[in-house]
Amino acid sequence: MTCIPTGEVTALVRAVSAQALALFRSGAVPIANKRPAGFDPVTDADRRLEELLRDGLRRLVGELPVIGEEYGVTGDPTAGLAWIVDPIDGTRAFISGQPQWGTLVGLLDDGRPIGGWMHLPVLGESYWAHGQDAGVDSPTTSRFGTSGCRSLADATVAATHPDMFEPALTEAYERIFGSARLTRFGGDCHNYGLLATGDIDAVVESQLQSYDIVPLQPIIEAAGGVVTGAGGEPPTGGGTVVAAATAELHAEILALM
Amino acid sequence: MTCIPTGEVTALVRAVSAQALALFRSGAVPIANKRPAGFDPVTDADRRLEELLRDGLRRLVGELPVIGEEYGVTGDPTAGLAWIVDPIDGTRAFISGQPQWGTLVGLLDDGRPIGGWMHLPVLGESYWAHGQDAGVDSPTTSRFGTSGCRSLADATVAATHPDMFEPALTEAYERIFGSARLTRFGGDCHNYGLLATGDIDAVVESQLQSYDIVPLQPIIEAAGGVVTGAGGEPPTGGGTVVAAATAELHAEILALM
Repeated sequence: MTCIPTGEVTALVRAVSAQALALFRSGAVPIANKRPAGFDPVTDADRRLEELLRDGLRRLVGELPVIGEEYGVTGDPTAGLAWIVDPIDGTRAFISGQPQWGTLVGLLDDGRPIGGWMHLPVLGESYWAHGQDAGVDSPTTSRFGTSGCRSLADATVAATHPDMFEPALTEAYERIFGSARLTRFGGDCHNYGLLATGDIDAVVESQLQSYDIVPLQPIIEAAGGVVTGAGGEPPTGGGTVVAAATAELHAEILALM
Repeated sequence: MTCIPTGEVTALVRAVSAQALALFRSGAVPIANKRPAGFDPVTDADRRLEELLRDGLRRLVGELPVIGEEYGVTGDPTAGLAWIVDPIDGTRAFISGQPQWGTLVGLLDDGRPIGGWMHLPVLGESYWAHGQDAGVDSPTTSRFGTSGCRSLADATVAATHPDMFEPALTEAYERIFGSARLTRFGGDCHNYGLLATGDIDAVVESQLQSYDIVPLQPIIEAAGGVVTGAGGEPPTGGGTVVAAATAELHAEILALM
């Protein structure tokens, strides 16, 4: 049986993520567009970081299947242990000089998320959850645990961008964000960290990929939060995701979807 | 004649702003609502920082008129030199654990902005512009100067929140943000810093207060950018503000207002 050393993965994710700082705001990052229509940027930094993560994880625990944003699937990630990696979550933030981008690594067991790591190098902030070991290491907080917020009328709700909700979800979006005490946009993966530290109360997003949310699910749950898809199903497939500080708040948001 | 020591003001703004870090994400900041309808949060940190700024500026250069967000106008700020201070720009970010909040100080001469300072303590980032002295001090960039972007189709455009545009501006907002290559929300005062460092190309916002933009105008202009109100007038009164990297991009956005 493969043993996954939590602290060593945390250190690896932190070290790899920090490599991207040399390119951040350097004016020297070539940006390619992944999508024929529209703008879906990817940089050399994304690709380079995924290579470093794959190499580093292999050195730590040997060869395991990997689902990666940039290099796709290697091996069979549905049987036994597998990694899922997003080298830079928040590429749009990265190319805009905004600080909320980070490196995500998740651990799957037979397709079920059992570990998650996130590091945001500009903020110097690491999150992890694996087995009984979960927490945050940050210059600005030491609290790990969601807020006690149980009502949308008292809640701060975040999403990365208002346009991430497709037309079919526009009314649900307006109901949910229109009922919150405070709404915040931007933030990318950091929003899920802020949920885990009790700074905000919910994150509602759409059009996520699997690698955007699988690494975060164990962190959110270890902090006491609830995260599912729009219909209450596991969020592992991506798409629309509802993450909330408490079961009561989560149920209220789901009822508005 | 009063001499304003640029570097000492920069140091003061940095030191005062850093005081708020002790309260940030502490779960110990009482939040009051300034508005009878809706939610306009103010914290003890805002009030305490404005007191520290007023005291510090007085010690540096003697008594001058001050326009402050929390304690209003003292003295006559329309004649000679006067300060304009926003102790925490981005109070909503501050109470949500988001890193883009900062302390703004502007210097007016007969009502005209002649100096500006901004410090964002979570990011460790200072901006200043006064006379011939202007720049940025940041762990993540050393570039001071706007991008050369001349066309909205190539531009990254930011605003703090999509709902800051009142109904009369909805169509203009959709034209402008719908024509940009990339749009980003969130960011508060940091967006104007990212404009000055060439990371983004324009900021279009509405419902600003005078103290939200006056301290930033000298920084944007020293970096090579253009900032006005929606009709091309000086932005000093707040309201709707268009800030762009180049005169060409600024004119294109103004034509869409």
